[in-house]
Amino acid sequence: MDLKKYLFTNKKAVETALKAMLPKGSVELSALASAIRYSTLSSGKRIRPILAIASAEACGGAMKEALPVACALEFIHAFTLIHDDLPAIDNSDKRRGRPSCHKIFGESTAILAGDSLALLSFEIILKNSDRRKLSDAKIIRVLEELASASGFFGVIGGEMMDIAFEKTEPGLTVLKKMYMLKTGSLIRASVRCGAIIAGADEKKMSRLSSYADHLGLAFQITDDLLDLEGRSSVTGKPVGQDKGLGKATILGAVGLDKAMMMAEVEVEAAIESLKSFGITADPLREIARFVIERKM
Amino acid sequence: MDLKKYLFTNKKAVETALKAMLPKGSVELSALASAIRYSTLSSGKRIRPILAIASAEACGGAMKEALPVACALEFIHAFTLIHDDLPAIDNSDKRRGRPSCHKIFGESTAILAGDSLALLSFEIILKNSDRRKLSDAKIIRVLEELASASGFFGVIGGEMMDIAFEKTEPGLTVLKKMYMLKTGSLIRASVRCGAIIAGADEKKMSRLSSYADHLGLAFQITDDLLDLEGRSSVTGKPVGQDKGLGKATILGAVGLDKAMMMAEVEVEAAIESLKSFGITADPLREIARFVIERKM
Repeated sequence: MDLKKYLFTNKKAVETALKAMLPKGSVELSALASAIRYSTLSSGKRIRPILAIASAEACGGAMKEALPVACALEFIHAFTLIHDDLPAIDNSDKRRGRPSCHKIFGESTAILAGDSLALLSFEIILKNSDRRKLSDAKIIRVLEELASASGFFGVIGGEMMDIAFEKTEPGLTVLKKMYMLKTGSLIRASVRCGAIIAGADEKKMSRLSSYADHLGLAFQITDDLLDLEGRSSVTGKPVGQDKGLGKATILGAVGLDKAMMMAEVEVEAAIESLKSFGITADPLREIARFVIERKM
Repeated sequence: MDLKKYLFTNKKAVETALKAMLPKGSVELSALASAIRYSTLSSGKRIRPILAIASAEACGGAMKEALPVACALEFIHAFTLIHDDLPAIDNSDKRRGRPSCHKIFGESTAILAGDSLALLSFEIILKNSDRRKLSDAKIIRVLEELASASGFFGVIGGEMMDIAFEKTEPGLTVLKKMYMLKTGSLIRASVRCGAIIAGADEKKMSRLSSYADHLGLAFQITDDLLDLEGRSSVTGKPVGQDKGLGKATILGAVGLDKAMMMAEVEVEAAIESLKSFGITADPLREIARFVIERKM
């Protein structure tokens, strides 16, 4: 299969849907609407929404059914990035190659833009899902995934650990736990939500969850490597930021060679989890390979 | 009826439920868990959860059924207060008579505590609702109310307008719109969610919505009056903060006497909306009177 074409087509579809789903707002809310659009419509990879679509397809579903949930996942992701970049957290001036949200719109608007996106992610699933096709029970399962993956025991908890661990050296087990929360939980939710929408059975859900858990770990380790080695013009983020902030990373704990090997092992394990799936899971397999080969 | 006893009993029930529903967290997340508990379990009036309970009861429902939703409403409220107090927004050092969240736990933890609470509000409805009694359709309707009342076209949008209007003099119509978003939308959602849980018909929903809209306006006008006249030891907030921040308020626009009269007219209109309800709506009527007579 042609992964490049697959990613391109789905990215386009996701971005068109994102645009349509974002609030426009009246005159009084135009700054907030602009901040939300600026941060959500910038040049992201859209990995999470594409994973949801690919997972739905691997279970016999269609891209169109997965689109509202795919967008909700991207909204959650955009929300966490905006708050992550704030001066009080990572104090990052750049994101996706452009000034971060608070640098353009100010800190108060950035905080509220993040808040809006978090809530919008629930609203669009509740409002835009095609009710003729999506049962109430499926909507509830999807919302459960989304809420638990992003909150205290998910991305936000992971962010908290990330901050708390600055300038410390936690062991590999604790670092893995942080990675699973900070990055893994939303990747897992993306894959699981796609599968729920397509009506996957428990066996498939469990295999896809295993795929996602391995992928999430590989993804974050590769992010660390890109932070160290990447070029800012390609990654869109400042290079060496982790070290500057004294971030505790797996890369820092085990060194470059071992970290790269770990990422590769995780990708192989992710692909192995899909062995009972047919060719409809090829995009998921290719995405797993892409995750550690990417340059941004 | 004895309103004082009613408020006391329900406040107790809500606070016991809040305590049980808050995450405890592992060692790594103990600071975040503490910040969440500190802000949520401080001495609030619990007006929103009590409104949800009173509204459910007015429609023949029971307090117990409304409790998870009541807690979710308080979580949303606590989330907006934490973010509202941040240095980048209202820069408020005190809340409910104690140092605000970021003064105790630092800004990064306060941002993440607010985020966690926003997401937790959805999680507890999805996880704690008694599924034998609450249908999927009702859960979805409640979540719709919650998401739209708190997000871009709700509390967060209202906060944005509140900031944008600082040091300006918008007309009364625009100020009312801001009050409806900033304060009214979550009051409306509280009353509507209680009614949804009790299975209210469209006629009742519409009358209760009217009650809530009038109440929300009266509530925010009274808040402005308390900001001007209240004693910090009773309100738990710094006195005269609105003026210090150059906040645009209805009080500032129409003056003290007219603002007080407006609040009274709104309360009368709120009570009038309930005229087809029997004595089960007495708590709602009494709460409306209490809202403008309160000292905190």
